[in-house]
Amino acid sequence: MLHIRAATIDDSPLLVTMIREFADFEHQLHWVTIREEQLRRDGFGASPRFRALIAEWEGQTAGYALFFNYYSTWVGRGIYLEDLYVREAFRGHGIGKAFLAAVARVAVEEGCHGLHWEVLDWNQKAIDVYKALGAEFRDGWRAMMLTGDALEQLAEKCPSENTVR
Amino acid sequence: MLHIRAATIDDSPLLVTMIREFADFEHQLHWVTIREEQLRRDGFGASPRFRALIAEWEGQTAGYALFFNYYSTWVGRGIYLEDLYVREAFRGHGIGKAFLAAVARVAVEEGCHGLHWEVLDWNQKAIDVYKALGAEFRDGWRAMMLTGDALEQLAEKCPSENTVR
Repeated sequence: MLHIRAATIDDSPLLVTMIREFADFEHQLHWVTIREEQLRRDGFGASPRFRALIAEWEGQTAGYALFFNYYSTWVGRGIYLEDLYVREAFRGHGIGKAFLAAVARVAVEEGCHGLHWEVLDWNQKAIDVYKALGAEFRDGWRAMMLTGDALEQLAEKCPSENTVR
Repeated sequence: MLHIRAATIDDSPLLVTMIREFADFEHQLHWVTIREEQLRRDGFGASPRFRALIAEWEGQTAGYALFFNYYSTWVGRGIYLEDLYVREAFRGHGIGKAFLAAVARVAVEEGCHGLHWEVLDWNQKAIDVYKALGAEFRDGWRAMMLTGDALEQLAEKCPSENTVR
């Protein structure tokens, strides 16, 4: 049987393990640097930057979902689903859908307009599941990212009178 | 001269005005339902869901930027830049870059790995500015969204034993 529960600070090592498994499945493990200390600090302190769920199938850890608050200036509160992962041995039991339902319920209870997430364009199996639930692609937009040295250099261009906290 | 400052609760009407101007520029005004009360509640209460900046050029309101905390399970803390808008009469003064520098500075000071945002695929002028600053496209990922009735229906499928808060 399936049980979904909120992750606690003690799940940090388990979350790192599953985050790495998931990134490996996505062929993206080379990008992952996250450490337990970061999750403990950022997810389970005074102002958590994310929330996480753990799925247990017959007492075994079957996967996790991790999400945070999103804000749309068009429609207000939303939820951003960063990760949704079901371990290989536990696929086919509807655990992914159960995670989505649990996060959707959080969203509805908190007055959010919807859930946002991203999917790898080659992951047709996931896309089919999401489409069947009524999810839609947000086409026409392209995601950008600024990191590393480019971020540092840009930050240095901000004069002190324009610095906000 | 340019001055960038943190928005306050009293800027909520001004933010709504500029949010609508920006959406109109993007040909997306039909999606916008946001109201002042939402911004007041969600941005300026006990647990703000976003932060906003206002640019003033020679004392006149020239634009706004709005961002919130992002969390990457690969690299940790980040910033999501939801909106970056410079009013037409104030373009060409480097205000967009100044906003980006201000947000980059927040990101660096808060130990974030980077800034994330989205750009409309036809907005080549914006893309050129972002690229020149060192931003990169996150290709290979497609954004999805689940809203409205589909969200409600999914939320109802969550049994109470899997409901988290």
